[in-house]
Amino acid sequence: MKLWDKGTSVNKLIEDFTVGQDRELDLYLAKYDILGSMAHTIMLQSIGLLEKDELEKLMSEMKAIYRVAEKGEFIIEEGIEDVHSQVEAMLTEKLGDVGKKIHSGRSRNDQVLLDLKLFAREEIRQLVDASNELFDTLITQAEKHKDQLMPGYTHLQVAMPSSFGLWFSAYAESLVDDLTLLQAAFKITNQNPLGSAAGYGSSFPLNRQLTTDLLGFDSMNYNVVYAQMGRGKMEKTVAFAISSIAATLSKLAFDVCLFMSQNFGFVALPDELTTGSSIMPHKKNPDVFELIRSHCNKLQALPNQITLMVNNLPSGYFRDLQIIKEVFLPAFDELMSCLKIANFALGEITIKENILDDDRYQYLFSVEDVNRLVQQGVPFRDAYIRVGKQIQQGEYHPSKQVAHSHAGSIGNLCLPEIQQKRERVVESFDFKKMDSAVKKLLK
Amino acid sequence: MKLWDKGTSVNKLIEDFTVGQDRELDLYLAKYDILGSMAHTIMLQSIGLLEKDELEKLMSEMKAIYRVAEKGEFIIEEGIEDVHSQVEAMLTEKLGDVGKKIHSGRSRNDQVLLDLKLFAREEIRQLVDASNELFDTLITQAEKHKDQLMPGYTHLQVAMPSSFGLWFSAYAESLVDDLTLLQAAFKITNQNPLGSAAGYGSSFPLNRQLTTDLLGFDSMNYNVVYAQMGRGKMEKTVAFAISSIAATLSKLAFDVCLFMSQNFGFVALPDELTTGSSIMPHKKNPDVFELIRSHCNKLQALPNQITLMVNNLPSGYFRDLQIIKEVFLPAFDELMSCLKIANFALGEITIKENILDDDRYQYLFSVEDVNRLVQQGVPFRDAYIRVGKQIQQGEYHPSKQVAHSHAGSIGNLCLPEIQQKRERVVESFDFKKMDSAVKKLLK
Amino acid sequence: MKLWDKGTSVNKLIEDFTVGQDRELDLYLAKYDILGSMAHTIMLQSIGLLEKDELEKLMSEMKAIYRVAEKGEFIIEEGIEDVHSQVEAMLTEKLGDVGKKIHSGRSRNDQVLLDLKLFAREEIRQLVDASNELFDTLITQAEKHKDQLMPGYTHLQVAMPSSFGLWFSAYAESLVDDLTLLQAAFKITNQNPLGSAAGYGSSFPLNRQLTTDLLGFDSMNYNVVYAQMGRGKMEKTVAFAISSIAATLSKLAFDVCLFMSQNFGFVALPDELTTGSSIMPHKKNPDVFELIRSHCNKLQALPNQITLMVNNLPSGYFRDLQIIKEVFLPAFDELMSCLKIANFALGEITIKENILDDDRYQYLFSVEDVNRLVQQGVPFRDAYIRVGKQIQQGEYHPSKQVAHSHAGSIGNLCLPEIQQKRERVVESFDFKKMDSAVKKLLK
Amino acid sequence: MKLWDKGTSVNKLIEDFTVGQDRELDLYLAKYDILGSMAHTIMLQSIGLLEKDELEKLMSEMKAIYRVAEKGEFIIEEGIEDVHSQVEAMLTEKLGDVGKKIHSGRSRNDQVLLDLKLFAREEIRQLVDASNELFDTLITQAEKHKDQLMPGYTHLQVAMPSSFGLWFSAYAESLVDDLTLLQAAFKITNQNPLGSAAGYGSSFPLNRQLTTDLLGFDSMNYNVVYAQMGRGKMEKTVAFAISSIAATLSKLAFDVCLFMSQNFGFVALPDELTTGSSIMPHKKNPDVFELIRSHCNKLQALPNQITLMVNNLPSGYFRDLQIIKEVFLPAFDELMSCLKIANFALGEITIKENILDDDRYQYLFSVEDVNRLVQQGVPFRDAYIRVGKQIQQGEYHPSKQVAHSHAGSIGNLCLPEIQQKRERVVESFDFKKMDSAVKKLLK
Repeated sequence: MKLWDKGTSVNKLIEDFTVGQDRELDLYLAKYDILGSMAHTIMLQSIGLLEKDELEKLMSEMKAIYRVAEKGEFIIEEGIEDVHSQVEAMLTEKLGDVGKKIHSGRSRNDQVLLDLKLFAREEIRQLVDASNELFDTLITQAEKHKDQLMPGYTHLQVAMPSSFGLWFSAYAESLVDDLTLLQAAFKITNQNPLGSAAGYGSSFPLNRQLTTDLLGFDSMNYNVVYAQMGRGKMEKTVAFAISSIAATLSKLAFDVCLFMSQNFGFVALPDELTTGSSIMPHKKNPDVFELIRSHCNKLQALPNQITLMVNNLPSGYFRDLQIIKEVFLPAFDELMSCLKIANFALGEITIKENILDDDRYQYLFSVEDVNRLVQQGVPFRDAYIRVGKQIQQGEYHPSKQVAHSHAGSIGNLCLPEIQQKRERVVESFDFKKMDSAVKKLLK
Repeated sequence: MKLWDKGTSVNKLIEDFTVGQDRELDLYLAKYDILGSMAHTIMLQSIGLLEKDELEKLMSEMKAIYRVAEKGEFIIEEGIEDVHSQVEAMLTEKLGDVGKKIHSGRSRNDQVLLDLKLFAREEIRQLVDASNELFDTLITQAEKHKDQLMPGYTHLQVAMPSSFGLWFSAYAESLVDDLTLLQAAFKITNQNPLGSAAGYGSSFPLNRQLTTDLLGFDSMNYNVVYAQMGRGKMEKTVAFAISSIAATLSKLAFDVCLFMSQNFGFVALPDELTTGSSIMPHKKNPDVFELIRSHCNKLQALPNQITLMVNNLPSGYFRDLQIIKEVFLPAFDELMSCLKIANFALGEITIKENILDDDRYQYLFSVEDVNRLVQQGVPFRDAYIRVGKQIQQGEYHPSKQVAHSHAGSIGNLCLPEIQQKRERVVESFDFKKMDSAVKKLLK
Repeated sequence: MKLWDKGTSVNKLIEDFTVGQDRELDLYLAKYDILGSMAHTIMLQSIGLLEKDELEKLMSEMKAIYRVAEKGEFIIEEGIEDVHSQVEAMLTEKLGDVGKKIHSGRSRNDQVLLDLKLFAREEIRQLVDASNELFDTLITQAEKHKDQLMPGYTHLQVAMPSSFGLWFSAYAESLVDDLTLLQAAFKITNQNPLGSAAGYGSSFPLNRQLTTDLLGFDSMNYNVVYAQMGRGKMEKTVAFAISSIAATLSKLAFDVCLFMSQNFGFVALPDELTTGSSIMPHKKNPDVFELIRSHCNKLQALPNQITLMVNNLPSGYFRDLQIIKEVFLPAFDELMSCLKIANFALGEITIKENILDDDRYQYLFSVEDVNRLVQQGVPFRDAYIRVGKQIQQGEYHPSKQVAHSHAGSIGNLCLPEIQQKRERVVESFDFKKMDSAVKKLLK
Repeated sequence: MKLWDKGTSVNKLIEDFTVGQDRELDLYLAKYDILGSMAHTIMLQSIGLLEKDELEKLMSEMKAIYRVAEKGEFIIEEGIEDVHSQVEAMLTEKLGDVGKKIHSGRSRNDQVLLDLKLFAREEIRQLVDASNELFDTLITQAEKHKDQLMPGYTHLQVAMPSSFGLWFSAYAESLVDDLTLLQAAFKITNQNPLGSAAGYGSSFPLNRQLTTDLLGFDSMNYNVVYAQMGRGKMEKTVAFAISSIAATLSKLAFDVCLFMSQNFGFVALPDELTTGSSIMPHKKNPDVFELIRSHCNKLQALPNQITLMVNNLPSGYFRDLQIIKEVFLPAFDELMSCLKIANFALGEITIKENILDDDRYQYLFSVEDVNRLVQQGVPFRDAYIRVGKQIQQGEYHPSKQVAHSHAGSIGNLCLPEIQQKRERVVESFDFKKMDSAVKKLLK
């Protein structure tokens, strides 16, 4: 906290505190800020607040800046406090006063609202892609290992037969529900806030439908007060969906860590995916999955973090909202890297053969044997007593035959049905509209 | 903690601890448990595990029990630990051993999963209805008060003109996004888990599609391991949506409490909706909205509560899941009462006339006046300097004319567009399918 | 939600909503409300606001009501909204107008603040007692099983030898730190808020030091605005301590559930502490520990729940605070029952003998064997290579000798030191002062 | 996510994921890691595992590295994964193999445990200092403004007279309770985990009391399994205390933001502490306090974040714990900057004179006037009716005299008593012991 000592001017202290991490965080938003400005500029010309030639110059310059941002070379210069100011400074430097004209009819409030939404909807698309890849790996592994049995546990007690087919595809189906939630978050995000200005609209005759169309939004946050209220709410809603995917990954990671323990020994990872010990040659630690679990548990705290920052604030803009960016913007990368690593590691995982040969698992089959007798005509009570007696007298020799045939069971995994469910959800994201709008803007 | 003293047998202690609040909480589930058993029974007969006449007897008796539950007269008797046992006990008392047969091919695990889903989807429908009512009240009030101006604040500082039309309809539009999230929660809920048994399926040839259809589910939790994994996950997902509606109500309540302060004095409630003080005759306290706010803030803690109970559990059933019911089941009533009271109170609220006549709000109009000059052809810089000088010299006399015309602004609230958005969301809940299925079962 | 239908008067609706669960919840507070009123009454007489004979009558009557409350027979009658009103009604019925006089110089705001603090400090004492009992059981078990080795895990991978002595006493030492936090919560709680009235004090010359002494408080919340601010803050601070104990119990419960799995088989519970299955005769499920874990995980959500209810409220009383009682008051019983059951069950737990004979644990000893060679003079590198080679060539035969002697290790558990630490913490709770004050009041 | 594309080797991916942010975050720990190693080295020599001359060389070299770290010039080189490895590399480069010897009898697990505790206890000391400074400013302002009245609110409704003396010192007293909690966190932190190795101790005859003394710890985490269990628990406990201070600051900031609104106008900040608007010349926004509030609300989410990462992990080390550093280490700076800025801004704040002259606050005095009549001998009922009638008939003219004299009220702020309470708490932190130990080590 050197900076608080005398010698530094108060203004510097205050400036550092208020600017905070904006100069770094806003780099996430640069591309989107430019896109938003392009749409706004076209609209301004359409309502007579810009001349045609001004529009052309501005568009050409903004495309150039976009290309810089796309290459990851956009920076916010020392002394400039955020992405909006940086873009304006660059335009003004090149084009003179016309660069300032693009701010008519908007405020930083709706500008950052817009940036966050354009950013989030693109990141959501990438989460969908990464979830799809993991889904495919899980389905592939389920199909491959559908005949490999494993113990099914309840209360962590050996209970009934399960299979690796079931285990892998359970997590695939879990991702489908996560995507359903993500789709709702996408829909809530994909509405245009531009034109709400500082949260009370503008006296200029803005054409909000035009910017909605130019940016490929699904709809509009009509009410300008609500548009502003969406700051924090959008982030929280997306965080719900992020936390749902994270919960699936965390549980999967817990299972892997458990199953890799010598006390289970169900699965193994190639050496490069484990860490050893310099003193214990037998150690192969599942650090990768422990880290996935921990990151995903941290991500599950995100909705509550955002809630605490926005809750009990009355309507209207507050500077509080700026701090949400610190936790929201990096969350996508954190989840993405977990999805990617999980996908890679689950593709490499190996399954132990013949797990159920171990005697400790023999009672798994008692229900099967009872049911088999029932289906052969023996009344349930009698069947139950017969098998129970065998167990008590140490004469129980399970047949180890599993003949589950109903939908979703060991013998009938319904992988195609799960895939169809996934496809229905994925199709409901309207990425094409947003993509073609963006492409058109940049042409 | 008397019960831990000597004199009480250990078994009693353990029993009380393990049964917990199930006997009270399961009353929420009684109707749904019976519906689920009816569908399961029909299916069992269809695959030859019950005779036709057994089915008829069982169905007739279950309908009778359902009617008891519908009247609110279903009770779980002393010594019976949960709703499932109580229904079985009632059937067996009337019909003898055939009453026990309905448990073939299922387990309490998938039975309670099913009950929770049937319960939640019905409660969701009621939340949709109550949200719709509140939405309608907000739109009506927005329409009625669309010309009444109020200050718009940023940073809680007087900023620009707003209106009660904007204020009321902002919350209406907020509810639409909440319903979008609720719709995703409904979709995730409305999938059939029956047939997953203890989480590993059954060796009986269950027809899960039949029970899916009989209960009017949208789809199925195919994978039986995933079906079990859905316990806790479904509740958490619904809790996200509950917390989203709650956040809207909480913010609205905060605004009302603030606007009722003598320092604002924008709105008033009829006396029966305020509480007074025995010593301060001037007090009219907005307790009702403070309680709405607090309940809704508590409800926003629900997702995290559930997360803490289910997180870091590996796959498979654990008794931990039972405790989720303590926080999940009563949450619907808590939110519902807030929606109902808010709806009632907002219908009765009165708005102060001519708020902006107060001098403290005169600078609200400075931007308007600058923009008006700009639209009359004065360059922005000049217009800004002119108005700025007037303010400095105490000669600023705002015109107090607000001419916002763009979509979502004071002069153009877009209420029909917001209503259409609402209708599109509400239509996407497939309540008809579930209703007609239930009606058919009970016929 | 019948009650919202027409036919019920609005007043009834509003009353039900605002009274909420107060009539049930306030029963937790009855005894403390009476104690507080006794101290306040004595003080009022001391500053001349009551006559001596009025004081005598009031004290005698309040003692009688206290005895009713102590027997658990205190009830809040239909139509009376809270415990404060009920006590006043009882006094007035017996003594006439003098019953109302005890409210001079206070408000319900400081009355409920006081009740909550008197309640919480007594409940904290009971938590200390129950934690002490569990601590003793853990130390006893550690002593008893100090020579029984078990595998020590890192990453859930077999790592190095541990012992049940270590395992049991680890949780004992954990409780000591939890008690340190609880002691801070006690200190923050044990300060007198009475006299702060509605949060702004009183124009009567109240003697706040006198009530502080009469009620055996450690100190006073001097500033009346801060005294009011303590509502919610006290509850949250106590919740931190509750959540700390809960975290210890939850982890302990997780270990027990894991160690009871057939894949570990380290510990067993007597049959009455497990639940079985009607179809799987081999099942002995650790439901008791799963329920402890789940309750304790739910309790860990309590601080955040309270935070969400009080956060972002400006200073001064709000009705929001009432709802905290719904989650705070029952939390003590919930934790207490977990402590009691855990204590009972851990006293009954049995430990499997000779766990480390199983071959899967043989590598546990590799570090021991390397270190032994080092201590015999072999350079570390050589020792490491020698043992490493043995392992690789399948010729490693661990000596299975563990000679850990340093403080806190297998061979030197430091149980007396841990007990001393515990005693130092427990002594720092000043229960005697509060007890003798209460006893004196009731004499 | 470029790095996942082909072209990058798998090892690189895995390495990046597992190293995570350790190379940056460990810089927080460098000084403490060296201190810990110095103590460990001295101890190793004392039990014969190092020669005297080896000790001297190592100590001299470590002091040199410490000085580098103190200047902020310590870096973790590319390819080295954490602070522990970097220090070892530096020692080995200078001293050869003897550099490696310092790792006998410990593991990275207890090394990082130790680093975190040494770091946290030093940061806690700085929080105590910064809290003390803010406390002093608040007391100074309370003394200075003790006669300036302001409205006291309940339900945000004008209620009774308050004063800026009360308002400032309320937050001072709040900090005292926060420090009490912080003191418990300090006590729990200030115990030596060194010697617990990987969580199961060591077969070397470590002298843990010696390292406890050398590092100035208050006590020891005796049980080695518990020492390891303390990871996450210590951080969470400190986070509770951080969140308590943060809650005080957040509430204070909310008040300031509210009181700066034109609708209150109670306080003002100098221009350099506000932000303006390029279009609204009347705007002076309290961004600084909004940012304090938001940072502090985010910090209140920290305990839950940590809980989610450690909850439901069985005993023993897991890599999950590494991620806690990402949220724990930067939290101190975040809170510290809020304390510093709040201290600065509250020293500069100005208070509006004669607030209560405004007519809207006249009813504040009704209770005073009733009580004054009561003290003049008029029965309460009569006094109440008399004042009530005056109010109703518009003839109420408050005397605006406030004569509160009891402890903690407007006329008797008890600032010395609050200061004494503060001093008692601050003295209970044993910083001297830790300081002199560290000084001695570095001599």
